[in-house]
Amino acid sequence: MLGSIQSPQDLHKLDHNELAELAKEIRIKIIETVTNTGGHLGANLGVVELTIAIHSVLNSPHDKIIWDVGHQCYPHKLLTNRYKEFDTLRQLGGIAGFPCPEESPHDVFRVGHSSTSISAALGIAVARDLQQQDFHVVAVIGDGALTGGMAFEALNHAGQLDTDLVVILNDNAMSIAENVGALNNYLNTLRLDPTLSKARNELESFIKRIPAIGGSVSRLGSSFKDAIKSLLPGQLFEELGFSYFGPFDGHNIRQMQRALRDGIKRGGPVLIHVLTQKGRGFTPAEKNPEKYHGLVPSYSNSKTGTVSFSKVFGESLVKLAEADKRIVAITAAMQDGTGLSPFAAQFPDRFFDVGIAEQHALTYAAGLAVQGLRPVVAIYSTFLQRGYDQILHDICLQDLPVVIAVDRSGVVGEDGPTHHGVFDLSYLSHMPNLIILAPKNGSELKAMLQWALVQNHPVAIRYPRAQTTVTDQLEFSSDELINGEVVVDGSDCTLLAVGGMVDCAVKAAELLSPSINCRVINVRTVKPFNERDLDRFTRDTNLIFTIEDNAVIGGFGSHVARLAAASGQKRVITFGYPDQFVPQGRIDQLHSMFGLTPEQIAAAVNKQVQAQLEYRKN
Amino acid sequence: MLGSIQSPQDLHKLDHNELAELAKEIRIKIIETVTNTGGHLGANLGVVELTIAIHSVLNSPHDKIIWDVGHQCYPHKLLTNRYKEFDTLRQLGGIAGFPCPEESPHDVFRVGHSSTSISAALGIAVARDLQQQDFHVVAVIGDGALTGGMAFEALNHAGQLDTDLVVILNDNAMSIAENVGALNNYLNTLRLDPTLSKARNELESFIKRIPAIGGSVSRLGSSFKDAIKSLLPGQLFEELGFSYFGPFDGHNIRQMQRALRDGIKRGGPVLIHVLTQKGRGFTPAEKNPEKYHGLVPSYSNSKTGTVSFSKVFGESLVKLAEADKRIVAITAAMQDGTGLSPFAAQFPDRFFDVGIAEQHALTYAAGLAVQGLRPVVAIYSTFLQRGYDQILHDICLQDLPVVIAVDRSGVVGEDGPTHHGVFDLSYLSHMPNLIILAPKNGSELKAMLQWALVQNHPVAIRYPRAQTTVTDQLEFSSDELINGEVVVDGSDCTLLAVGGMVDCAVKAAELLSPSINCRVINVRTVKPFNERDLDRFTRDTNLIFTIEDNAVIGGFGSHVARLAAASGQKRVITFGYPDQFVPQGRIDQLHSMFGLTPEQIAAAVNKQVQAQLEYRKN
Repeated sequence: MLGSIQSPQDLHKLDHNELAELAKEIRIKIIETVTNTGGHLGANLGVVELTIAIHSVLNSPHDKIIWDVGHQCYPHKLLTNRYKEFDTLRQLGGIAGFPCPEESPHDVFRVGHSSTSISAALGIAVARDLQQQDFHVVAVIGDGALTGGMAFEALNHAGQLDTDLVVILNDNAMSIAENVGALNNYLNTLRLDPTLSKARNELESFIKRIPAIGGSVSRLGSSFKDAIKSLLPGQLFEELGFSYFGPFDGHNIRQMQRALRDGIKRGGPVLIHVLTQKGRGFTPAEKNPEKYHGLVPSYSNSKTGTVSFSKVFGESLVKLAEADKRIVAITAAMQDGTGLSPFAAQFPDRFFDVGIAEQHALTYAAGLAVQGLRPVVAIYSTFLQRGYDQILHDICLQDLPVVIAVDRSGVVGEDGPTHHGVFDLSYLSHMPNLIILAPKNGSELKAMLQWALVQNHPVAIRYPRAQTTVTDQLEFSSDELINGEVVVDGSDCTLLAVGGMVDCAVKAAELLSPSINCRVINVRTVKPFNERDLDRFTRDTNLIFTIEDNAVIGGFGSHVARLAAASGQKRVITFGYPDQFVPQGRIDQLHSMFGLTPEQIAAAVNKQVQAQLEYRKN
Repeated sequence: MLGSIQSPQDLHKLDHNELAELAKEIRIKIIETVTNTGGHLGANLGVVELTIAIHSVLNSPHDKIIWDVGHQCYPHKLLTNRYKEFDTLRQLGGIAGFPCPEESPHDVFRVGHSSTSISAALGIAVARDLQQQDFHVVAVIGDGALTGGMAFEALNHAGQLDTDLVVILNDNAMSIAENVGALNNYLNTLRLDPTLSKARNELESFIKRIPAIGGSVSRLGSSFKDAIKSLLPGQLFEELGFSYFGPFDGHNIRQMQRALRDGIKRGGPVLIHVLTQKGRGFTPAEKNPEKYHGLVPSYSNSKTGTVSFSKVFGESLVKLAEADKRIVAITAAMQDGTGLSPFAAQFPDRFFDVGIAEQHALTYAAGLAVQGLRPVVAIYSTFLQRGYDQILHDICLQDLPVVIAVDRSGVVGEDGPTHHGVFDLSYLSHMPNLIILAPKNGSELKAMLQWALVQNHPVAIRYPRAQTTVTDQLEFSSDELINGEVVVDGSDCTLLAVGGMVDCAVKAAELLSPSINCRVINVRTVKPFNERDLDRFTRDTNLIFTIEDNAVIGGFGSHVARLAAASGQKRVITFGYPDQFVPQGRIDQLHSMFGLTPEQIAAAVNKQVQAQLEYRKN
């Protein structure tokens, strides 16, 4: 049946048994596809019925559906004419794992980062009103995404504007890891007693027993307060100007259809609270939702003896924390992904998952540092973008000893442009007081972390989503970090390579040897990096190549070029990403697409060296 | 009496009449000083009694007080041993207008941007607990700052952690402009009936009349709901895990002392709601709080015939919006400062002040643009930092036609490092799809805005906090923008100047003429800017100077240097801010401090040209 759905309007003709059958087929298709291509599993299985309910009531793309984060859009994609290409999910040139307006008019807003849907939906709704158009706007946001500050900013604005807007709170009691925060506790009280009948009964009997309520609020007992509160579910949202409906069973299509129709009829800003189960219908994912949040593609197999940079980071931090009680760790809903689970297990009091709240995570770390602790904040490069201002003002301006572990820097592969970490060197390099390090392997990461934790300045350590090895037991002095490492010596030209690109530079040099002798430098310290460092690294060579897994604008290469251009004595060619967004695809495909394989770099270096020789001859 | 206060502990010995007298003296001192030095007036006059109450109960710096935004810290500074130097407020080398830990141990956390205090205070409180220390932590946050998303992120985390932390909500019903948003409406219900007696009486009589409450929540009338809600003031905060106290009269020292003592005794996260009046005790400021939010120094007098860039922007936008109904304007609590008041008056339905919520402002604009409108978001350069991720992902990745008016770019003067706009070129230049323009004067700003509003890409226009002129009626073609303007022709070297620095470059060229003939280019288009543009601008000169009111790392000069270094044919010297934070001071002092006056630039250019001539001779 799923294959015959040409447009979501086809759902309007199906009866309830057929919709239930459709739900089954969607689940099977998603499980089949994702176990092969990799991708988000739990969130998508959780919203199958919700998506069917939405599309069977609404009229997309006339009506607009905005998915927050967007990793739950697979059922939506399958119902909006992308069933046939669905096997290309997350592959180069294939269907995106997130909503993508270039792909379909049913994908209204491009997403990937959390907590943007209410802002975008409100903009669309207000634009509709101003242009006297007539359609419905529905934002679907998870309870995890709701903890992101900008979701609150948007609720606050929407509650005031009073335009017709439906926000569906898809409450699965999880973000990626288990949900945290007071908001979660609050939602939990709503979840626990959907019918509210018990508390209401208690209130009734209470009121019958007492002739008049006493004068002072403070004299009211807490059980009475709780009883009164239970009369007003969703008060938090009501206080912000929303009409609250719910909670509803997110796997009961009929109930959700009715709720959505009622919500639309009510008008103004409406919040519909729906309870779903992450991984629903796939037992392993139901039992272990964090593990099945995202799957890696079937073709990715780690070499034996390798380990992820994230794991090296997490395990090293545990070791360091055993020796230094001042060390604490902070993550923004990425405990497992950042490798912090062992730390959380061993030091529960010194571990803080603040939820999807990168801004708070960084300023909270600044507060911890002010008071003498040694906070380590581990956030993926792409999500760290959310905390740009907090790193600059709250950490760097105060020159506080906060260590920022910038995980997943460089391209990350199939998650695509919203998840690549190709801007961090560009947005961090101009921050005064910040030291930026990039390890070439696990051994260096360990040693850099150890070094960073005894500095009196902020330190960012960037490392890729990749497997690595820990072979040597290193310990870095400040000089060793600043002096970098001459990995290959040579005198025809110098390759300055950053972190994960050092291996690539070495291979390029091997390809060119012995006809061209490259010097290959593992720079280790991206910042500070001054004229003297440049002279020391490049010595008598006047042809320099920088290689980084980052945008060339504002990155390490730009900085080196500025130093070199001041004297005009040396040429600098920068390898990295050009001025465009990097698409989805395997990491090796993406490197190849942008000329970052050893072969491509060797060819480019060869061409420049030959041209230089020609030039000298003439 | 104020002059004799050596430490805040001296307040513990004063009786209530003396404290009231002290409040008077603080007000006089602030009014005297600020009318001379410039600075924030309204907010400081509003918190005189609150500050006295806090310091008379707490024991600073043992106890920690964190001021949100920090522009209300003058009474705090006067009470913490900075009375004598207070006349140097906001001047180069003088007392900072914001809390500054380098200045005093009583200033715990450096601030300037809004909504960080709860995060920082929570970090300090948790660090205290982990280290088994014993002191109180109090964050003071305004109702305006509370609308910033990260304040909510922090409340959410604090409500869960259950550590001892007092948040004082300083509710003056204003941020800088009038407060907006549903939260404000909510606070208003609390403000209106502090004693809550009326609603409670209604509830009592209601309950007496009805023997038992009906079965369904939806059947409860709204008046009954409101009555019940009134029994539970501060429910929004209570739901997030805070104990709510208030509201209290923020000008009654005794009441606030009691509230603070009670709040501390209660333990856990506590929110004390205090009502203050902005500008209290100074009639002009009470009557016009937005105008008296900040005063300019007495020595700043605008030349006749000049107008601020902000005003040119606002008035131009009104003209353009008259002709194009799709144009809408968005500000984040800076309606007057960004020059948007005329627009708001003429097009109230097309104007949106979202409150202190930059992230939402930008994604909301993206939503408006998706649906065919032409949003213009006007935000100061420094505050735009908060929306870095939203510009990159929600606007640039989708290549949406949003115009970002980057006001107050470059150094802003006395507000200091948290307010200078010296990073925007560094954090915007690497964003794909974004066009960045910089007008040299008001005429260009007008024409650039007109051009930007018909593009199908995002456009950022950056302009300084400065007076300018509108002399010519310009209209730009795309070519004219890309081709820039040859302001002075010459062949010894080329000065590439950005926006507000064009005048400075022209003056430097005049100083050098006729011995050195500089070509001076008004680049107009900072991005895109490629090799061909560089060749066209510099022609036969191989000595290039870039001049920008921005950090040199990642700025325009770095980009030019990267282009030049690839061929190695041209030298590039970059003028701008080095890798450090820029202090407070007059704009001319700051330019001079960093070598950006015409005389300094002329001297540096002269030196380089002479060296080049020497080099050629040898």
